Amino acid sequence: MKLPENVILCEVGLRDGLQNEEEILPLETKVSWARAIARSGFPVIELGSFVSPRAVPQMADTDELFSALAGVERVELRALVANERGVERAAQCGCRKVKLNVSASRRHNLANLNRTPEESIDGFSSCVQLAQESGIEVSGSISMPFGSPWERQIPFADVEGMIRAYRELGIREVSLSDTSGMATPAQVYDLSVRIQESWPDMIWWMHFHNTRGLALANILAAMQAGLNRFDTSFAGLGGCPFVPGAAGNVATEDALHMFLEMGISTGIDLDACIEIGRMAASRFERSESYILRAGKSSDLIR
Amino acid sequence: MKLPENVILCEVGLRDGLQNEEEILPLETKVSWARAIARSGFPVIELGSFVSPRAVPQMADTDELFSALAGVERVELRALVANERGVERAAQCGCRKVKLNVSASRRHNLANLNRTPEESIDGFSSCVQLAQESGIEVSGSISMPFGSPWERQIPFADVEGMIRAYRELGIREVSLSDTSGMATPAQVYDLSVRIQESWPDMIWWMHFHNTRGLALANILAAMQAGLNRFDTSFAGLGGCPFVPGAAGNVATEDALHMFLEMGISTGIDLDACIEIGRMAASRFERSESYILRAGKSSDLIR
Repeated sequence: MKLPENVILCEVGLRDGLQNEEEILPLETKVSWARAIARSGFPVIELGSFVSPRAVPQMADTDELFSALAGVERVELRALVANERGVERAAQCGCRKVKLNVSASRRHNLANLNRTPEESIDGFSSCVQLAQESGIEVSGSISMPFGSPWERQIPFADVEGMIRAYRELGIREVSLSDTSGMATPAQVYDLSVRIQESWPDMIWWMHFHNTRGLALANILAAMQAGLNRFDTSFAGLGGCPFVPGAAGNVATEDALHMFLEMGISTGIDLDACIEIGRMAASRFERSESYILRAGKSSDLIR
Repeated sequence: MKLPENVILCEVGLRDGLQNEEEILPLETKVSWARAIARSGFPVIELGSFVSPRAVPQMADTDELFSALAGVERVELRALVANERGVERAAQCGCRKVKLNVSASRRHNLANLNRTPEESIDGFSSCVQLAQESGIEVSGSISMPFGSPWERQIPFADVEGMIRAYRELGIREVSLSDTSGMATPAQVYDLSVRIQESWPDMIWWMHFHNTRGLALANILAAMQAGLNRFDTSFAGLGGCPFVPGAAGNVATEDALHMFLEMGISTGIDLDACIEIGRMAASRFERSESYILRAGKSSDLIR
């Protein structure tokens, strides 16, 4: 079985995980969790979003979170932005990496914004310019390229158009996000092969939700197609915006356990992540992690 | 991605699923569920075990269940047996297929029975003879070939020895069962390739528990190695004998949904299975199925 020697993981629990929870976590707790995640060895952490505090109250203190983590080294801290105001906030609090987002669902984008996804991405040019002026790196993301509640199937030509639009803005790092939990391993494999063939010079991230239990199988398929960057979330927090109460992002502990047991390096300490997962699960009284429930395989040894 | 065109599934919920539940399901409910499973299109159903009613009270009425299903056609009904008494019971109630079982853990088998797994299988010869005389087909199964709490890793030579012992008894159909939930996709792929290379004339079943969230990824790996027979359980009922409260067998609904979405034929009606899964989940107030929780991907379409 063709698998990579190592994978690069981003902990998205502080953003995608918390965003799904009603209870606002105090800043000092976020800082403490973020420091623990950095200490566990995660190379990348998505700390929050620079979006309207009214729209997403849980993300209102993303600025303070970045400021508090200014001294933390050897970890890339990134945040979501939706517009120039977000980039301004990023610049002010010392955030060095932002991520733009568009929906792969043409009908969704047209209905909401009256423009195609490619037009939306073209509209990001002022964000990109401002980011460059501020020395901030920009990456892109595409939601639902594996299927959406509007079209069900997204033609590859559509995803292609969005990647091209991102490239035209100078963006070379793109994340594909199965927000609706509709991706299957066969589809992930095919799309992963195609994007790498079309753009061998780009950096790809895969972001899977475990809505229908397939997140680990989808990571496996992406790895077989040669990809090795994945988002994960402590205790599997997060959700599916189209299915209230559905399972969330793939759990950090479960993904790490799979990599560890298959001899794939992550540079991350699973036991430290199990502790973080336990804290999060206990705080929100919710866990979607198998490892938090069953323990590691090695725990069984008599 | 190399995948089979079709898979052959066995519903094991009535045996491995119910065995994990304390509440004894009345015979008439078992009959009704078994008939519904047969109607859904399942080609194989594991109805129960012919073991001591004192040891496993839930399985005490396996004989009556087989008798009640005598008229059901186009489905193979099988049961677990542990000894000659079990084969006698099978013969009396019209069961035409039995499955023997041994632990792949040499230390486990030695500690419990003071004999190696191969010696245990040799001891099954009287069962096999009696079955043949009664026109009953015999298959074998090996628990924990992917890892056990005793040895952690099971040498391939050990699994090889057990398969040879089964073959010497004339058995050509063997199930490998990840009872402890320790299997990883890479390991499943490797073992699936090796057994097929060594014994291309045999029929292989894979039986995965979702203890650590890897059951669907393990099925994917086995399919890529060319296998296509899998056990599944309604609502994901079942458990891990070494982790109280752990997740159970891979959920029928989740596996069927994955096959359906990837265009792999099963001959089974997913909607009918969702209904059965709902009944079981409601009866035992427990579900380990993502599809019962989130619905099918196609349910999202607006």
